[in-house]
Amino acid sequence: MMVRQVTAFSNTTVKRLRSLRDKKARRAEGLFLAEGLRIIAEARDSGQLPEIIAFSAEGVKHPLAAEIIAAAEAAGGEAIETTPDILTKMSGKDNPQMLLGAYRQPETSLGRINRAAAPLWIVAQAMRDPGNLGTILRTGDAAGAGGLILIDDCADPFSVEAVRASMGALFTQKIAIARWPEFVAWLRAGEGQLVGTSLKATHDYRLPTYQAPTFILVGNEAQGLPADYEDECDVRVKIPMMGRADSLNAAVATAIIAYEVLRQRLPAGAPAASDEHASRDGAVRSNNSRG
Amino acid sequence: MMVRQVTAFSNTTVKRLRSLRDKKARRAEGLFLAEGLRIIAEARDSGQLPEIIAFSAEGVKHPLAAEIIAAAEAAGGEAIETTPDILTKMSGKDNPQMLLGAYRQPETSLGRINRAAAPLWIVAQAMRDPGNLGTILRTGDAAGAGGLILIDDCADPFSVEAVRASMGALFTQKIAIARWPEFVAWLRAGEGQLVGTSLKATHDYRLPTYQAPTFILVGNEAQGLPADYEDECDVRVKIPMMGRADSLNAAVATAIIAYEVLRQRLPAGAPAASDEHASRDGAVRSNNSRG
Repeated sequence: MMVRQVTAFSNTTVKRLRSLRDKKARRAEGLFLAEGLRIIAEARDSGQLPEIIAFSAEGVKHPLAAEIIAAAEAAGGEAIETTPDILTKMSGKDNPQMLLGAYRQPETSLGRINRAAAPLWIVAQAMRDPGNLGTILRTGDAAGAGGLILIDDCADPFSVEAVRASMGALFTQKIAIARWPEFVAWLRAGEGQLVGTSLKATHDYRLPTYQAPTFILVGNEAQGLPADYEDECDVRVKIPMMGRADSLNAAVATAIIAYEVLRQRLPAGAPAASDEHASRDGAVRSNNSRG
Repeated sequence: MMVRQVTAFSNTTVKRLRSLRDKKARRAEGLFLAEGLRIIAEARDSGQLPEIIAFSAEGVKHPLAAEIIAAAEAAGGEAIETTPDILTKMSGKDNPQMLLGAYRQPETSLGRINRAAAPLWIVAQAMRDPGNLGTILRTGDAAGAGGLILIDDCADPFSVEAVRASMGALFTQKIAIARWPEFVAWLRAGEGQLVGTSLKATHDYRLPTYQAPTFILVGNEAQGLPADYEDECDVRVKIPMMGRADSLNAAVATAIIAYEVLRQRLPAGAPAASDEHASRDGAVRSNNSRG
């Protein structure tokens, strides 16, 4: 390997990677950061290698890490070996990862979305918490969604926080960014049922028959959906609330509805359901509550 | 009102409130912080007033805030009016709240839990992310849980991050903290079905008949549940995963199972389901995807 050793904070590549924690720099460079072997391996398995990869002497000892570093270099990427201190500065995390990659941001126009490719898509409107966006990407991956469409001013899905919360789903889910009128025009030019969560809804979320492709529309964390956005929905549903509060976390509400859509598509069947499902709907993984 | 005006960072009360962002100080003082009118109003509605309340001149203009400040003082609490700058320093948040209260931490022994008081309880094991704990509290409130039992070394449910993510559910849900053997002894001394999410499970989470009181056990974000903890469960379930990743966020997985337990208890019924449910199971609130 032609790996360079870098031990100075002032190194150009170090400064460049570190700058990617900032949205303006991400936009200017067209790159974003992913941290940790698990997410970087997920990216590789999805066919994506980092343009720049930084790692510690400890990090490169892992055979999978060494393999990915070699593949990134073979594809023309830059690899630097650096100190845990510098990796910490770059990731801004107390518990630093030993591996960090900068990836090319995908194009995010609606034209990238082939709605027929998946029975479920998630649409987030003005969602401000990057952790919520990442968690929704991760949930979408698990629930069989094709991707996430961001409407109006959402947090940056390529921020370090969103990538981290997505646990790699950022690399498996398609991402599009659009204004509302543009999205509605695109949606209505093809098949698709738009399902909104709404304060005005009278329908329990378990009652409608969801039709593929289903687009679950979820609104801003504090405001919910604007009234005219709700009006555009084909179905408005509510999740029953038994407690004092009138709300759920946006990512949690999305997950409850996404799994209801999946329920209708994927009957629970017999106890050994996973084998049956594997042949019908692709790989079904075991559950673990990681992350 | 006997409100004091405080404009110095060096003020004793300011320093004391600010110290509560630190776990050691919270433990030493027996207090914790809650920020913002929404959460502080939720606390008041649940019968809890702050021992110390700090607010800006802007904050006190809201009639509900003024009412809570007066009630806190009448109950012997300390009220200080201070500057937005100082409130920002105390909350450590970019977007500062105009109201901040310090509350007495409740006692957290298992003896506080009356399992017959609710059909659902959530048990988190070694959960490290305070945001996940707060989100689980909020979900528990919505799904009709009685509270959250923390096993082994969890994040502090009284941390600023957990209180914030709970959106006030910290005040409506009971909280207990215990070691595993103590919890198992307590659980087996009464009624209760222990439901674990497990990599080894063959049962889809939609198949079992859940029996009240149901205890949903969810493990550490990275490791899941220890094998012997899984063995103790009466039912082990998995959530089907259609994607590349093998996991969901811990709070999301908890929510999916909690809402399945609720589904069995609360049929979706007719379109105007909320009125029926309100009479049968207490108030059913509308859904909104806030937070």
